[in-house]
Order: sequence, then C-alpha cells, then structure tokens
Amino acid sequence: MTDPQLRDVPIGISATGSRTEFDSMGDVDVPAGHYWGAQTQRSLIHFSIGDDHMPIEVYHAYGYVKKACALVNEAAGRLPEWKAAAIVRAADETIDGKLDAEFPLYVWQTGSGTQSNMNVNEVLSNRSIQLLGGDLGSQHPVGPNDDVNMGQSSNDTFPTAMHVAAVRMLDDVLLPKVEALTEAIEAKAQQWDSIVKIGRTHLEDAVPLTVGQEWSGYAAQLRACIAEIRHVREGLLELAVGGTAVGTGLNAPKGFSKDVAAKIAELLGKPFVTAPNKFAAQGSLDPMVRASAGLRGLAVALMKIANDMRWLASGPRTGFAELLLPQNEPGSSIMPGKVNPTQCEAIVMIAIQVLGDDSAIAFAGSQGNFELNAMRPVIINNFLHSARILADGCEKFRTFSVEGTQVNEKKVAEYVAESVMLVTALSPVIGYQNSAHIAESAIAEGTTLKEAALASGKVDEETFDKIVNPLAMVGDGVEGA
Amino acid sequence: MTDPQLRDVPIGISATGSRTEFDSMGDVDVPAGHYWGAQTQRSLIHFSIGDDHMPIEVYHAYGYVKKACALVNEAAGRLPEWKAAAIVRAADETIDGKLDAEFPLYVWQTGSGTQSNMNVNEVLSNRSIQLLGGDLGSQHPVGPNDDVNMGQSSNDTFPTAMHVAAVRMLDDVLLPKVEALTEAIEAKAQQWDSIVKIGRTHLEDAVPLTVGQEWSGYAAQLRACIAEIRHVREGLLELAVGGTAVGTGLNAPKGFSKDVAAKIAELLGKPFVTAPNKFAAQGSLDPMVRASAGLRGLAVALMKIANDMRWLASGPRTGFAELLLPQNEPGSSIMPGKVNPTQCEAIVMIAIQVLGDDSAIAFAGSQGNFELNAMRPVIINNFLHSARILADGCEKFRTFSVEGTQVNEKKVAEYVAESVMLVTALSPVIGYQNSAHIAESAIAEGTTLKEAALASGKVDEETFDKIVNPLAMVGDGVEGA
Amino acid sequence: MTDPQLRDVPIGISATGSRTEFDSMGDVDVPAGHYWGAQTQRSLIHFSIGDDHMPIEVYHAYGYVKKACALVNEAAGRLPEWKAAAIVRAADETIDGKLDAEFPLYVWQTGSGTQSNMNVNEVLSNRSIQLLGGDLGSQHPVGPNDDVNMGQSSNDTFPTAMHVAAVRMLDDVLLPKVEALTEAIEAKAQQWDSIVKIGRTHLEDAVPLTVGQEWSGYAAQLRACIAEIRHVREGLLELAVGGTAVGTGLNAPKGFSKDVAAKIAELLGKPFVTAPNKFAAQGSLDPMVRASAGLRGLAVALMKIANDMRWLASGPRTGFAELLLPQNEPGSSIMPGKVNPTQCEAIVMIAIQVLGDDSAIAFAGSQGNFELNAMRPVIINNFLHSARILADGCEKFRTFSVEGTQVNEKKVAEYVAESVMLVTALSPVIGYQNSAHIAESAIAEGTTLKEAALASGKVDEETFDKIVNPLAMVGDGVEGA
Amino acid sequence: MTDPQLRDVPIGISATGSRTEFDSMGDVDVPAGHYWGAQTQRSLIHFSIGDDHMPIEVYHAYGYVKKACALVNEAAGRLPEWKAAAIVRAADETIDGKLDAEFPLYVWQTGSGTQSNMNVNEVLSNRSIQLLGGDLGSQHPVGPNDDVNMGQSSNDTFPTAMHVAAVRMLDDVLLPKVEALTEAIEAKAQQWDSIVKIGRTHLEDAVPLTVGQEWSGYAAQLRACIAEIRHVREGLLELAVGGTAVGTGLNAPKGFSKDVAAKIAELLGKPFVTAPNKFAAQGSLDPMVRASAGLRGLAVALMKIANDMRWLASGPRTGFAELLLPQNEPGSSIMPGKVNPTQCEAIVMIAIQVLGDDSAIAFAGSQGNFELNAMRPVIINNFLHSARILADGCEKFRTFSVEGTQVNEKKVAEYVAESVMLVTALSPVIGYQNSAHIAESAIAEGTTLKEAALASGKVDEETFDKIVNPLAMVGDGVEGA
Repeated sequence: MTDPQLRDVPIGISATGSRTEFDSMGDVDVPAGHYWGAQTQRSLIHFSIGDDHMPIEVYHAYGYVKKACALVNEAAGRLPEWKAAAIVRAADETIDGKLDAEFPLYVWQTGSGTQSNMNVNEVLSNRSIQLLGGDLGSQHPVGPNDDVNMGQSSNDTFPTAMHVAAVRMLDDVLLPKVEALTEAIEAKAQQWDSIVKIGRTHLEDAVPLTVGQEWSGYAAQLRACIAEIRHVREGLLELAVGGTAVGTGLNAPKGFSKDVAAKIAELLGKPFVTAPNKFAAQGSLDPMVRASAGLRGLAVALMKIANDMRWLASGPRTGFAELLLPQNEPGSSIMPGKVNPTQCEAIVMIAIQVLGDDSAIAFAGSQGNFELNAMRPVIINNFLHSARILADGCEKFRTFSVEGTQVNEKKVAEYVAESVMLVTALSPVIGYQNSAHIAESAIAEGTTLKEAALASGKVDEETFDKIVNPLAMVGDGVEGA
Repeated sequence: MTDPQLRDVPIGISATGSRTEFDSMGDVDVPAGHYWGAQTQRSLIHFSIGDDHMPIEVYHAYGYVKKACALVNEAAGRLPEWKAAAIVRAADETIDGKLDAEFPLYVWQTGSGTQSNMNVNEVLSNRSIQLLGGDLGSQHPVGPNDDVNMGQSSNDTFPTAMHVAAVRMLDDVLLPKVEALTEAIEAKAQQWDSIVKIGRTHLEDAVPLTVGQEWSGYAAQLRACIAEIRHVREGLLELAVGGTAVGTGLNAPKGFSKDVAAKIAELLGKPFVTAPNKFAAQGSLDPMVRASAGLRGLAVALMKIANDMRWLASGPRTGFAELLLPQNEPGSSIMPGKVNPTQCEAIVMIAIQVLGDDSAIAFAGSQGNFELNAMRPVIINNFLHSARILADGCEKFRTFSVEGTQVNEKKVAEYVAESVMLVTALSPVIGYQNSAHIAESAIAEGTTLKEAALASGKVDEETFDKIVNPLAMVGDGVEGA
Repeated sequence: MTDPQLRDVPIGISATGSRTEFDSMGDVDVPAGHYWGAQTQRSLIHFSIGDDHMPIEVYHAYGYVKKACALVNEAAGRLPEWKAAAIVRAADETIDGKLDAEFPLYVWQTGSGTQSNMNVNEVLSNRSIQLLGGDLGSQHPVGPNDDVNMGQSSNDTFPTAMHVAAVRMLDDVLLPKVEALTEAIEAKAQQWDSIVKIGRTHLEDAVPLTVGQEWSGYAAQLRACIAEIRHVREGLLELAVGGTAVGTGLNAPKGFSKDVAAKIAELLGKPFVTAPNKFAAQGSLDPMVRASAGLRGLAVALMKIANDMRWLASGPRTGFAELLLPQNEPGSSIMPGKVNPTQCEAIVMIAIQVLGDDSAIAFAGSQGNFELNAMRPVIINNFLHSARILADGCEKFRTFSVEGTQVNEKKVAEYVAESVMLVTALSPVIGYQNSAHIAESAIAEGTTLKEAALASGKVDEETFDKIVNPLAMVGDGVEGA
Repeated sequence: MTDPQLRDVPIGISATGSRTEFDSMGDVDVPAGHYWGAQTQRSLIHFSIGDDHMPIEVYHAYGYVKKACALVNEAAGRLPEWKAAAIVRAADETIDGKLDAEFPLYVWQTGSGTQSNMNVNEVLSNRSIQLLGGDLGSQHPVGPNDDVNMGQSSNDTFPTAMHVAAVRMLDDVLLPKVEALTEAIEAKAQQWDSIVKIGRTHLEDAVPLTVGQEWSGYAAQLRACIAEIRHVREGLLELAVGGTAVGTGLNAPKGFSKDVAAKIAELLGKPFVTAPNKFAAQGSLDPMVRASAGLRGLAVALMKIANDMRWLASGPRTGFAELLLPQNEPGSSIMPGKVNPTQCEAIVMIAIQVLGDDSAIAFAGSQGNFELNAMRPVIINNFLHSARILADGCEKFRTFSVEGTQVNEKKVAEYVAESVMLVTALSPVIGYQNSAHIAESAIAEGTTLKEAALASGKVDEETFDKIVNPLAMVGDGVEGA
C-alpha cells in the first residue's frame, strides 16, 4: 500500500447543512461548511458567553506548536512523513490566518484551554483529511487526538501557545510602537532643550527647568519600560510543551520537550527553550503574571505623560497653556470652537484598562491548583488585550498628539518672568528663612520677586541679577543633575 | 412654503466611493454608503485602537435620548413637527438596532463620549435628511448640532445614555438570568434538604448539615446580590440630560431636564428622573461606580458557589466526590475519560474578570476633573461587559451545570459515618477538653469516633448513641439557626 | 455550698515570670502578668508576622457579643447567675477598653478568627476567675470554652464581632466626620453661589457656572456617599451568632440566635437582627464586601474633590490660582516660601489606599469554601483601616483645608472676562458652525470673543452684549438645570 | 575663634513642657523632651490620621542619606568639618535606631515626604546643636535647612531614602526568608521524590507524578520569584539625590549627585548609583511600581503553594488527606480535636493583602504630575508593608508548616491504586477513544481500571500490567519532562 498523497485542495468545504462528527462521548452535528469537530461544537453550545472570543493570536501561535510537534514526531519516526506533511500544511495555513474563521470559541470555556486545543486539533485533522482525500469527520487517516495532538496535552501546549502568542505580540506589535513613541518624545526633548520653563511640584510653581528636560524625563520613563518589557519577555521564552498532562511528560518520548522547543525557536527565529521545571510551568502561570506587570509599568508611565500633556495644554484662556496639541476634531457638540486633549484622554483610559486587566491577571495567576492553573483563557485574553490597546494607543498618541505638539513659547516665557520660586537660588546666599520671607512678601503683595528681594534689604540688585538667572538654574544636561 | 414631507425611504444608501461631509473644522470624505458624517470619520481616523468598540447598547440608549429630546423640543415649539418626526423615526430605527452598522467608533476616544454623541447626531441628521428628501452631508434641513443635538451636550447626554443602557442591561439581561439561577439553586436546596452531609470549615471536617442547607446558603447569597443590584440600579435612574455643557443647562430651556427625563421614563416604562444635582451628575460617575460594585458583589458570590461545586465534585477517585456534575464534553485531549468542572471554571474566570473590570471602573470614577469626568467610555464599556458575561455565565452555569448536578449520596453517607467531628455534640455533656481528647485519639488511632469515645470512659454507649446523631445535629431549618 | 462571690478586684495581675495555662493540646507558659491563656500564647508564637494587630475595635465588639451571650445563657438557666455576672463584668471591661493590653494577636492568624475569639475567651475566663477568687489558668470556675464560649463558635461570633465593630466605626467615627465635611462644603457652596467662574471640561475652558454650583456638586457627591454608606450598613446589622460551627446552631439552644441578636441590639441601641441564613452568613462575607464598596465610593468622590481643589489652587503664578488654600506649613525644604496643597494630597493618597484595601476585601470575599470564609481577619482589618483613615482624613481635610479655603475673586473674574467659550450662548442664535468659527478666530488671533464676534459680521454689538452675559448663563439654581 | 567642639552628650533632652521652635512661618511650641522642630510639630497637628506612621525604615535610610550628603559637602569644603562631624554623629544614631522615638509623623502627610525630610533635618539639627553645646531650637550652629539639608530637597532625598529603605528590606529581611523557605521546600522535594501520587488537573484525578515533583514545582516557582525580586531590586539602586527641587540639581554643586550616590554605596556596601535621568526619578516612582510587582509575583506563587498544601491536607476523614501538616494549636473553639491549616490561611491572606497593596502602589505610581509624583508616602508604606508581611509570613510558614509537613503515604498509595486516569498510558497503544471508553466504564461501574480494561477486550493482562505502571509514568526527573 502506498502512502496517501497530499493534494492541493484549496481551503473551504463546499457543503451545506450539517456533518456528523464524533468524540469519546458520541456523535455531534457540526455545520458542514466548517472544519471543526465534535468538541468545538460542544463548546460552542455550552459556552456562548458574551462576545469575548479566544484571541486569534492564540490560534496562530498554536499553528507553530502543532507544526513543530508534527515535525519532531516525524523526525523521530513516530508520525509517517505523509501525515506530518498534511498536518504541517494545515498548521501553516493556521499560522497565515487562512483558517481564522474556523476558531469560533469563547474565552469563557474550560480553564485549561482544552477546547481551543481540541478546536485546533479538529481543524488540523479535518483539513489534513481533506488534503489527503479522506472523509471529514472520520478522524482518519489523521486523528485529532492520536495524530495532531500526538505527545501533547492541552496542559502543556496551551501555555506554550500563550507564550508564543505573547512574545509575538510584544515583538511585532507593542515594542515597535512604544519604541517609535519614545523616539518621537526624545526628538521633542532634543528640540526643546533650550526653552526654559517654570517647573511645578505639588502642582505649585517651583524652580525652572527646560521643556526638553521635562520631556527627557518622559523618554527616560519609556526607555525603562521598554527594558522591563524586554526583561519579562524572557520568562515567556520558556515553554511547557513536552510536560503533557501533569508535567511528567507521560506519553511524550524522552527529549520531546527540548526538541519541540528548539523547533519552535527555529520556526520563529526566537530563542525559545524548554521550561526548566514543567510542574511550575503548568501548575502556575507566573511568567504571564510577571509579563503583565511589564505592561502595567508602561501604562503607569504613559498615564503620567498623557496627564502632563493635557494639563500643560489646558486653556486656552484659563489653563496652563504651555503646550499646543494638534487639533484633530471639534471637541464639543455644544461648545463651538472647543478643542480637547482627546488623544491624552484615550491614553489615560487605556492605562486604567491595563491596570484593570493586570489586576485580573494577577488574581487569576494565584488561583492555580495542583498540576494546573485553570485560569488560562482569562489571563491570555487580558494580556493580549492590554498589549494591543497599549500598542495602538501609543501609535495614535504619537501620530496625532506627540509629534504635532508645539510649545507656546510666549506663555512659557511669561511664567518664567513672573515666577517667585526663582528665589530658591538666593537661598544658599542669604539663607532659607530670609529667602522664604522674600517669596512670601512677593506673593502677598503681588510684586515681582526682584522687587520683593530688593525691598527686603537682604540682597542688592547686582547680586540678585547675577544669581536669579533662570538660564543658569537649569543645570547642564537634558537628563538633569 | 409647505413643510418637507417624511417619505418612506428604506434604510440604506445606494452609493459607492466617498461623500464629502463637513464640520466646523472643514471637509472630510466619508464612505458614501454610510450615514455618518465628518466627526465620526475623524474619530475613525484618529482612534482605531484595538478592537473595543463602543457597546451597541449605548447607541440604542442614545436612540431613546434623542427621541425624547426631539419630542420635548417639538412640544415646546422649538423644533418643527416635521423635523421632530424625522428625527424620531431615525431614533426609532436606532433603538431597533436597524442602524447598528452606522456606529463604528471605538471605546478609546474622547473621554466625554462626544464622538459617539456626534456619531448619533450625524447618523440621525443624515437619515432624517434622507427621509425628508434632502442632500446627505448638507446638514439641511436637519443639522446634527443645531437640530438633533438641540438643547443638549455630550456632557449631559452621554452619561444619560450610559444610565439608560446600564438599566436596560440589568433589567432585560442580567437580573432575569441571575433570578433563574437563584431559583434553580433554591430548587436544589429544597430537593436535598434531608440529605445529611459533613460540613467543612478551613477545608477540614466539621459538624454535619444537610446538602439543602448548604445550597440554601448559596441561594441566600444570590438573593442578597439581586437585592443589591436592584439598589444600585436606583442610582442609575437619575439622568444628567438637561445640564448641557457644564450642568447649568445653558442653551436648554427651563424645565428641559425634567421634561426629557419624564419622556425617557415614559418611552421606556421605567422610573427615570432628572438628577438632583447636575454638577455631580456630569463631574462624577459615582452612580456607575456604585453600580459596578453591585456586579462585583455578584461575582464574589458566584465565585464562592462555583468553587464549592467544583471542589465538591472533585474526583472521581481521589477527591471529595460528593457532587456529580453533568458531563458536557470530554475534559482532556490526552487523558481519556476525563471530565472537568468546566462551567464552574468559566464562572470563576468571569468573576475574576468582573473584579478586574470593576477595579478599572473605580479607578476611572476617581479621575474626574472640574465639570467633567472624562473617563466615560472606559467605564460604560467595562460595566456592560461585566453585566453581559455575568448574565450569560449565569445562564450557562444554570443550564449546563446546576440543573443537572446530582448528589453522590453513597459517598456523602460514608463521610457522615466516618466523621470524627460529630464529637462536638458531646462537648456540652462531657466538656470541650474531654471531647477533644476523644477526637484526637480517634484520628491518631484510625478508629471510629464511637470506639474512641467508649474507650475514653467519659461516655457510655447509650448516651453516645443518643447524642451523636447526625440527623439531630443539623437543626431544623434550611436556613440554619 | 454557696455560690462564689464576685469580688471587686482591680484589673491587673501582680505576678512576674510565667504561668502555666493549658488547652486540649497541653500546657503552655504564658507571661504571668497577663490574663491570656494557652491558645493566645500559641498564636503569639506561631503568628508574629509584621506589625498588623487585630484591630482593637474587634475586641471591643467581642465584649458586647460575649456579654450578650452570657446574659442570654443566664436568662435561660444555662449559666449560673454568678458566672454570668463575672463574665459580664469582664466583658464590660473589655468594651470599655480597660483590657486592651490583653489582646496582642496579629491579623495574620487563622482565617476564622478563632485565635482572637479564644483570646477573648481566655481573658474573660481568667478575669472572671480572678473576680471570683479562683486560680488563674485553672479554667475554673469559669472556662474559656465551656462557659465564656457557651453556645458559640468562632465561626459565628467572629463575623458577628466584625459586623458590630464595623457598624460602630461607621456610626461613631466615619459618618459624623463625613457629615461635618459635607456641611462645610455645603456652606461654601452657599457662600459662593453668586461668584461666576469659567467651567472646565476636558481641562479646557468651557462655559460659566458659579463657584457655589461647582461646590454644590461636591456636596451632592458626598451626600450620595453618605446615603450609600447608610445603605451598606444595613447589611451589617444581620448577625451570624447562633449559627455556631457551620450554621446549623449545633450546641446552641433553639432561639439562641434571635435572642443574642436582640440582646446585642439592646446593649448597643442599634437595630441588629439575626441573619436570615446562617450558611450564607458564615460561608461568605458578602455584607462586608458590599460595605467596603460603600467606603470605596466615598474614596472615589473625595479623590475628585481633593484633586479639583489642588488644581484650582495651583500657582500662585503659573497655575489656575482660583482658590487659595490655607497655608498650614512651609511646603519645601529647598524652595523658600513654597506652600503646597498637602491636605488634598493626603486625601488623594487615602483614597488610593482605600481602593487598594477594598480590592483586597473583594478578593478575600471571593475565597470562601464550604461552611466558612476563612479570610476574615484580612477583611475586617482592611475595612476598619479604610474607615478610620477616611474619617480622620475628612476631619483634617475639613478643618485644615476646606473651611479655610478662599476664592481668588480677582483671578476668577479675569478668567470670565477673557473666556472664549461664552460663544456657546450665541450658538442657538447664529448656529453652531458660525459660532465655532468666531471662537477659533478669537483663539487664533488672541482677541476677545466680542472682537472676533463683531468682526465675523454674524452678530451685532447689541445682540452680543445681550446674549453673551456670563451671569445669565449659569442658570438659576445651585444644583444646576 | 575656634571651632565648636563635639561633646559626648547622651541622647535625650531633660526638659519638660514645651520649647519654642521656628520656621519660615513663625514660632511653634514643641514638646521640650523631643528633638523635633516646628515643621514636624505642624505636621503632627495637621495630619494625625489613623494609625499609619511613616515606616521607621525610611528614617533609618534617611540617616544614610544625610550622612552621605554631609560627608560629601564636607569633602568639598562646603560644610565645616565640625558641623559635618555633628551631623554624621546624629545620622549614625538615626541609622542605629537610637532616635526612633523622634520620628512620629504619619503616612498621610504631604505627598513629597517633605515633612518627614524636615523631621529628619530638625532632629539632626537639634541633636547636632546639643552635641555642639548650642541652644535647641536656635537652628545654630547647625540649621535644618541650610546645613542638614544642604544641596538637597525632599524631592530628591525622599525617593532616595525610599530606595535605600526598600533595598535594605529586600536584602536583609525578605530575600533571606524566601530563600530559607525555598530551601525547605527543595529539601522536601528531594525527600519525597520517590513517592508516586495521583496528579490532579481541574481538581480532577489525572495521571501520576511524585510528591517530590509536585514540590519541585513549588520550589521552581519560588526560585523564579527570587530572581525577579533581585531583578526589580536593580531599579531601586538608582538614586535621585542631587536632582534637588525639580531634577536640575539647582543649589547642589556639580557632581553632587554622583558623589552622594557613591558615598551611599560605600556606606551600605551596595552598588547604588545616581539615577541616569533625574526628571524621571523625581517625576515618577516607576522603579517602586516595578519593585512592587516583584513582591506581587511572590504573593501569587505563595498563594498557589499554600492553597495546594491546605487542600492536600484537608480531612482528616472527608478530604484529600495526602499531607499531614503540623498541629500547632487547637483549631476550633467549639469543635474539639479540630486542627486547621492556619499557617496556609495566613499565607493566603498575606498574599491577598500584598495584591491589594500592590494595586494601591500601581495606582499611586500613575498619579505623578510634572516634576513630582506626590504619592510617595502611600507607595513606600505599602511596599515595606508587603515586604515585611511576606518575609515574616515565609518564615512562620516554613517553620511551623512546611518543615513539619509529612506525607500520608498510606492514603497516597490508595489513591494510586484506585485511580482510573492511569488509562492515559494505554492511549498511545490502543488509541484515545478506546481508552476513554475503558475509563468511562470503570467510573460508571465502580470497578478498577484493570477490570474495565480487560473487560473491554482492547488490551490483555500482560500488556496492561506492563504499560499501566505508575512508577514508570512519572518520568525521570524531579523537574519533569
């Protein structure tokens, strides 16, 4: 008997009505036009909850996992070449997003992700069968459990797919967009490095710094966030696959965990490795909790930056009015001519959402029991959600707010001229208490600092002019002291 | 000149390519096949962030708000009858979901919801124009700002739509499903009220109660949650509409706030009223924060119930095995014959998500400034999301887990027979310390409680048999002492 | 034999070194100068974690619980009059705080609070023994389990003490201080009701309102918070006592739960009742979770108010400068003359802490299992902590910030004069788009609104002066439209 | 004139009543027996809120900061040797905890920590004055602002003290205790590596692993937590000192930031460095937010471990009963002989508290504005609180629970004998579906797996015995596949 031949059948099933599929519990009717099988259908019936679907990125990642397993199984002679070829072909189609419509399940399902794993197994099984000329639903010649899931369990492959999906999201989506935002801010810091402004602490007037210095602080915050995200990403490079049901690797051959991790690394060009302890890798989701903290750190920094920008742009007549943000749209349905810091507001809301998502992730991360943390779907969904809205938010914020922001130099200069806190420079010369009384008097009398200083008799004009020089007070570097 | 006539034009624009719309900032090209205008299009360009769209329920609610305003404006002679008729017709179509495809905006937009309000204004304007035979995009004879938004602001109408959407979600979706779940649990409590089981505190064996009593506790928790949701719903009945831009009602006529609230109440058959203080109603979103706490309370109760059920069903051979949950699907891709408490897991994950959503809502609720809390989209999105997944989760949990749950009476009886904590009943007779030593001895020696008790010489057999009677120890009511 | 006589022994044990106490596990040495017994000492050894002690309010509340139980047991003839008298005397001393030094345990102990219950039992036992002339540590004639704890369990009395402590904290500490703050703000709203200012939405200039209206919004927020706290307090009036170990009331006589609740109600003059379902009351802590949401609601409102105040007071030269807060202390160790909104900052930090505490409470509330939620200490500690810092924070905020706050009327008037958003009033007359162009032109050219309006040719001076009248734009009530 | 001489005056002021101190706002009476001055006293008056005091560790850390600054100022000739000597002496006393009673302030104070910085400045000033024979309260010859605070601001020194305090807490308190716990768990993993048990996923019976493997998972989780804490600690090594008021270093000489950081590093023997960007270091508290995530990660892992332990120890008659935890105290006031997993409960509650604390820290971390994050006290208090209770919790957990835990080998073996999930090993031989039917039949009929397998006719006895061998199913390493 010759091996079945892989045929070049385009994706799609030209059938209507329903098809009978089976699993160990019996027969189930599924829509004839889809590849999925009995267990996917059972899940659709039992878990149509809300509108949260398992993120498609998880399935794309699963494509890599299934492909790698098939290749390793084939190389070891456990899976015939022709079966492996069919599975690999279907896995590639999954990776390429060509089978996206075949993954309809919800986030709110079994906590192990088994139903999504079986969804993948069933789709790859039926697509392979189709490619090999078999009967859909027959589980032959390629079975969802025995072939596509060979040497695997949901318990080890689902967290593997989570890690792969998360790393891809960080590498391909989030990090480039945060990097671009950071560079845009760094360019602003550079551009505005000689514009002296009055600093504010406790929202109150303080001593001067340059606008560039202020923005260099934002950039430094983001740089640290990027570094932290890169750090937490490392924990995601460790894969559970090979641990199978409880971490012991039962039904997977010796070396399978290392081999599959290496294959995934090769396929993705990323340094994935097998997790050093499979019981930790399957009983906990700690690396995901840590990774979420990396996203949260970014949210915290972005919130500060966006808040600063919208406060500094407040006005035009009754606010700080130091910055001019791009006017992207009319701001009010009732107040004509109003323009609002809407990109900043979006960022603030995104940051709050990310903190909410992160808090769900941490909670879920703590709820593992024994050999499984059965809170996986809620964790990966929140993680990918956070990463996505942060990424897109950074891009819009950069494009439609940061890059077009201008300094209202006239206003900034006025503030410097009026400021009383420049008195601080006098403190080392005439002492803190004397300086304080001068400042208090200027504020109370509504005079300039110079007038109050001279009136105090504690300093002469020449000294005052020499010392109270805003330009000299900002230090000598964009990064501060 | 006669009034324009309302014509019976079906929904839809048969045009391809783009159409020019304008707003105060100038012209914008929009897809010719859609009703939305310039500001919607601007928002689509500037805020395509992630995949979170403003919930459709908000737009349906807005339909009521716009309809009520039009009717009140018409009744007061501010809006010609024919204009009002067109707006009302378009609003009704919005309410009925026929224009759902016209509301494409994202959650991450301006924090006031202005863009979604303008989306509604533009769609109702253009649809009205179409119904009246005018030119789309001309803003005549029905303008988005001057007519559809007459006497309104996003600042007052958006929180109004939030409240209306939230109340409808509670009334139509969440409460009925929680009620049904509670009734199912109450039926179980009734059914199992004579099955004595061993209670557990600290996860450790304790004194007996009936299975019915245990489930009566679940029901009582849910009853209290329902009462609390009904309570927080009351705060949502107060509407901001009429406060316009900052709460003073500028550009709205005297009495508008009361009139529109009354009209909304009439249209929906729900006791909506005007908010007693518009500055609080627009500067804060406190009633939403309180309402979210109502959802959170339900999540907390559900998590306890679902956890109890899955632990009590653990096994079959190495767990508690007191309950038998319906077997809805194979549980494992690798372990044949495994069945898992997947509905319970979904509920636990939903509960965790709701706590995360709620934490985002509380944070956002605290971030108002001056006359506006500009965190509205993130709040309403999380609220409706939580309510929806709780509702659907309750329904699935009831249908596929609670209703089919059975008591493993054999196992439950074995536990009662083996229990040592029945010793507690002896305590009032022979004292706590003597009783403790009997229990300790039984546990250490692996004997029955009776053996240990008699061996202690502190109690005779007749007394033991009379006092240590599990049936007599469960009190006399399903609700406990 | 005559009954032992209650003797008038002052509180205190004149002994040094250690005394031997016992429990069912054996002997334990305790400090001779203290009343506590073996189990308290065991807890001290095993749980000296951090510096979080079980709040003293829990023990004061326990005093009421133990007193009420003793009186009910006595009335029913289960406890001899002389024993009850001794226990009541010791309970009264506990209530009065005279035995505070006898309750040294930590929050991080058994999750049922058993160790704190036993601490109370032991102290009341030994103090009773002392009053009756017995030997400390002998457990005679008054035993900690058999007499002080008669008819009780930690499982029912600890949540009872939690509720009593929480209600007392709300009634005696928090509510009066929030009420006082609200009244202070209401007085300000009244006082400033005729001062017109420019409102702000999205931090941007908006249309006018009065300072009084703005503050009436704060007051309305707080009034709603008070109402909500009163509401959640109702759930705390339901007491678990009588349910004993698992809710069935085992070892407590029929009617005990109702009788004790009635006695506690009588002793405290508050409408406590027995919980309608003891399994819910002991297996969950849902009423505490709901009560915490009440505190959170207050935190959210306070954060908005304190933030508004510190932003409005920002300056003096480069900020909003609308409000002048009392200057309570020098603000900076380096910047002479600086004054900061420190009371507002304290409130903001308190609000954040309360949200953190609340999030721990909600999490803990979800972690009950079977007949017990064993997360009680962490819940009551966070709750009382939140209530206390909110209460004290409100008092300080009122005394040192709100009451002394003044309006900078000069600045406020300047803003009104300069504002461009007054254009909104023209919108109903000349249309939204025309008005928008006038506003945009005024902002771009730096002119007044009037100049831009007249230049536009869309409105004449007479009309402008009549319509653009800030005083007429604020509506006619402190509570808005 | 000769320099004032440092005299050997013991700590303490023998005076009663009050002493007049002054600051720029005027005179203030302070308790004569204390070293603190006017600003400390003002803070005590204005901020006595609750019972949360600024952690003493912050003051000890401040001792290092003040000492380092004095030494650097002295070396540069800005501070006379004799002044520096006095300040250093007082700083050393602060470091050694000898002046702990002089730091009475509350957490709820100014958000910059200025009042605590001034508390330190005042105490060091007066103590120096005392050592130099001057008049307390005279601010001469050592002034709190001009000398002790020379070249410093609260804005840079307070976050410096936060970082120093946090690093010391991690190094000296938390990490050693987590390390010890981890080693104890690793020892157990080693000890129990040959005891085969039935694994559980979804709480349901799964395939076998060894008890040692299960515990190796716990250890691996903790090892990763330790690594992560070490990682986040690195961010805390960067110090803001030298940035002074807003980050520019105004009033601090060139090089001051680097010099002081180097001096602090030298004094503490830890690699502290100057923060690379002072605007980020003062305007944000991002490294603290990240550090808190490190603590949270530990909490999440501990919660899983403690939960596993208490569930596995549940029983004795109606639970899992696989583990026997040490019996440290009687567990119930009403149920004699009851023993509960109290150490595990304490850990779970601590974990929940840490998540609450962490959520407050993240929120606070997002609330910076411009040149200052004024949420410092709430952040450092929560961080040190979390670290402390985690540390102590780990120690108690290890000592009183982990180290004394024993495996109930009889029970564990019974479970293995009864398990049905061993069928998984048959799956590669007879296929998943056949295996599933065997398992289902065994469960339904209540037979052993072997009986069901042979009855199925799908496998013979010899094959069954060879393949279904639990010992062979656990893989070959303590760390799994």
